[in-house]
Amino acid sequence: MRIAIVGLGLIGGSLGLDLRRLGHGVVGVSRNPMTCDRAVALGAADEAGCELARVEGAAVVFLCPPLDWVISMGEAVLPHLSPGAILTDVGSVKQPIVQALSSQWPQFIGGHPMAGTAHQGIEAAESRLFQGRPYVLTPTTSTPAASLEVLAGLVQSLGSTLYYCPPDQHDQAVAWISHLPVLVSASLIQACQGESQGEILRLAQQLASSGFRDTSRVGGGNPELGTLMARYNREALLTSLRQYQGAIAGLTQLVEAENWAELQQQLQATQVQRSAFVDP
Amino acid sequence: MRIAIVGLGLIGGSLGLDLRRLGHGVVGVSRNPMTCDRAVALGAADEAGCELARVEGAAVVFLCPPLDWVISMGEAVLPHLSPGAILTDVGSVKQPIVQALSSQWPQFIGGHPMAGTAHQGIEAAESRLFQGRPYVLTPTTSTPAASLEVLAGLVQSLGSTLYYCPPDQHDQAVAWISHLPVLVSASLIQACQGESQGEILRLAQQLASSGFRDTSRVGGGNPELGTLMARYNREALLTSLRQYQGAIAGLTQLVEAENWAELQQQLQATQVQRSAFVDP
Repeated sequence: MRIAIVGLGLIGGSLGLDLRRLGHGVVGVSRNPMTCDRAVALGAADEAGCELARVEGAAVVFLCPPLDWVISMGEAVLPHLSPGAILTDVGSVKQPIVQALSSQWPQFIGGHPMAGTAHQGIEAAESRLFQGRPYVLTPTTSTPAASLEVLAGLVQSLGSTLYYCPPDQHDQAVAWISHLPVLVSASLIQACQGESQGEILRLAQQLASSGFRDTSRVGGGNPELGTLMARYNREALLTSLRQYQGAIAGLTQLVEAENWAELQQQLQATQVQRSAFVDP
Repeated sequence: MRIAIVGLGLIGGSLGLDLRRLGHGVVGVSRNPMTCDRAVALGAADEAGCELARVEGAAVVFLCPPLDWVISMGEAVLPHLSPGAILTDVGSVKQPIVQALSSQWPQFIGGHPMAGTAHQGIEAAESRLFQGRPYVLTPTTSTPAASLEVLAGLVQSLGSTLYYCPPDQHDQAVAWISHLPVLVSASLIQACQGESQGEILRLAQQLASSGFRDTSRVGGGNPELGTLMARYNREALLTSLRQYQGAIAGLTQLVEAENWAELQQQLQATQVQRSAFVDP
């Protein structure tokens, strides 16, 4: 199958490595000529260049730019698509993208491979990045079944665990497990800076260990990405944030009231509840 | 040196393994005769039994029971201590313990080895558990210098990084980096349960990945320990919680106001600030 990848960063490049390994012909497109050269040199594309017209003849086109460019890049690609070509993206928020593009191209299918590393760019591209990871497709009621089947087959060939859901459900789910944690975690780092005694802050920095490391990790992550997620998933994130503020206020109240039996009961509940999300 | 360890769980047992390896004679004390037998069988003590009188003749006595038993166990040990014996504990909150015990035994020195695993009990004891980990000693102005020197030498022989600070400073620092994260993280798990649509909660559980895993880890930890920390370090924890609630309210306000430039600037700041606490 001839496949085009527009945007050759970590995700686009890693897709290219896998799709070529699986025997597909991969054409890459990037605004940056040096990125195109590196993608070919690293084996992430058979050929690559800056012209969007390169997507012509591709059966499937992956849009892999930063989240805030997906819609405009999708619209710029449309005139170059071959009839019936499947257009998909890899953005971490789905509703605004699906709304904008599926009305203009019926074979557009929103996608979200939930994989990544701490690194960015074509040099960070990894083979088998998506293996064993969730990959969500968000078809609408008007998505052609045949197009969905082709894309689903590609996703499964990457070794991903495929999920289907409507775009708005995807966005609400990732608000809870991905976007809310970023602000919860960033607030922890920020709160510590409010420690008024410099020597206690220094001591805290020296003693900080795995508990602080893990709880603060995503709050110390990519600021642009965190902001984009909040911007594109604002409504669902605000719902989660309000719920969260209620939860922390409730636990604080138990500490204030010295209601240790209830605090322990609630911590027992969170211990159990967590196991439905992740392994211990 | 003859050393007694009262309380043979993960910390007491691991101390015993290391101190015996370093050539000391270790006597263990536990309420549970089976724990005593296991401690000797595992090499965590040369001899062990249920009688507190076994601490007689020890130059150093480590109190290693759960946090809420340290003071009463310390007081029960006092009549059996040899003159000049150094008494120390391993509790994760220091001020109430130091206040209670140093007035009754001048050679009491509060201690906090910041090491652990997800497991508990003598079977979880590990050699070199403290190596490369912080170990805080909290002497007071009346702590005899010679006693402190002996204990500091022992701590350093474990391979720990030794820190000194007053008990109240220790408690404030660990409120920020250890006790606050537990409630921040538990609130995240709790908030997700408030998602009113069952299918979105199930989807969130399926898609939850490393971000949710790390941010929720300590909130899914030992409920008894989390409650004890809150109980014994209530004042410092409440100060941290109030500061934290201000921080998350501030970030929420930026999302509400769609002030993306300021949100990104604050996330850039937390990214930098985190690096003063832990490596990326």
